[in-house]
Amino acid sequence: MTAPAYDDGNIFARILRGEIPSHRVYEDEATVAFMDVMPQGPGHLLVVPKAASRNLLDADPAVLAGLLPVVQKLARAAKAAFAADGVTVLQFNEGAAGQTVFHLHIHVIPRHEGVPLVAHSGAMEKPEVLAENAAKVRAALAAL
Amino acid sequence: MTAPAYDDGNIFARILRGEIPSHRVYEDEATVAFMDVMPQGPGHLLVVPKAASRNLLDADPAVLAGLLPVVQKLARAAKAAFAADGVTVLQFNEGAAGQTVFHLHIHVIPRHEGVPLVAHSGAMEKPEVLAENAAKVRAALAAL
Repeated sequence: MTAPAYDDGNIFARILRGEIPSHRVYEDEATVAFMDVMPQGPGHLLVVPKAASRNLLDADPAVLAGLLPVVQKLARAAKAAFAADGVTVLQFNEGAAGQTVFHLHIHVIPRHEGVPLVAHSGAMEKPEVLAENAAKVRAALAAL
Repeated sequence: MTAPAYDDGNIFARILRGEIPSHRVYEDEATVAFMDVMPQGPGHLLVVPKAASRNLLDADPAVLAGLLPVVQKLARAAKAAFAADGVTVLQFNEGAAGQTVFHLHIHVIPRHEGVPLVAHSGAMEKPEVLAENAAKVRAALAAL
């Protein structure tokens, strides 16, 4: 079972190159985080390593080592920013697992007691809502 | 928002101490992996750091740095062992997010095209099935 090759025309690669705008909340040498434009809940964000890999299966272990500490930071910030009761972390590998963009990314979704995840409908959130939510996450990150 | 304290009576802490049996597929200095007894699909396994933390939110970043490379190994092995098309990785923080055992763990679930995840029904898988699936994962790990 050889994995399909990485295609650098994917939308996250284009966001990383600055060809497509995003509501960024975090950036370091290795990682970027921005709001999911089709959130499964308010504050749904994506943590994306800059290094090219299709998903977890073909990623460089050194990149993976740096990734979860950043996810932790963003999970804490997102929980605080949205006064959430919990945080769901999801990571999908290949279409059979729900992956739709083929650049490694981790979903971080603030959760509230009794509120189910919104199903992926393909509906885009309004840019002003995403901008407002991104500002909340940035403020919470600064206060960590 | 202070997090609740870690309670070392949780079932994964007891598995780590050897007080409760498990179908182990992997162990290193920092991490253990074993089959989920209530699988959401054949080959569903859990990657569990030995270090005590309630979930991702209170974990030591150094522990987190070691965790995802191990998850990668097990995701590759589980995909191969079950001839899967993909792998879903899930990590829940607090009850509102679906966490039921309060020791940090990461779900690794082999996926097949068109086969949805089994809902958590509370039904236990037969020990002989878990043993057989664990043997498949161990063989795939050895062949990586």
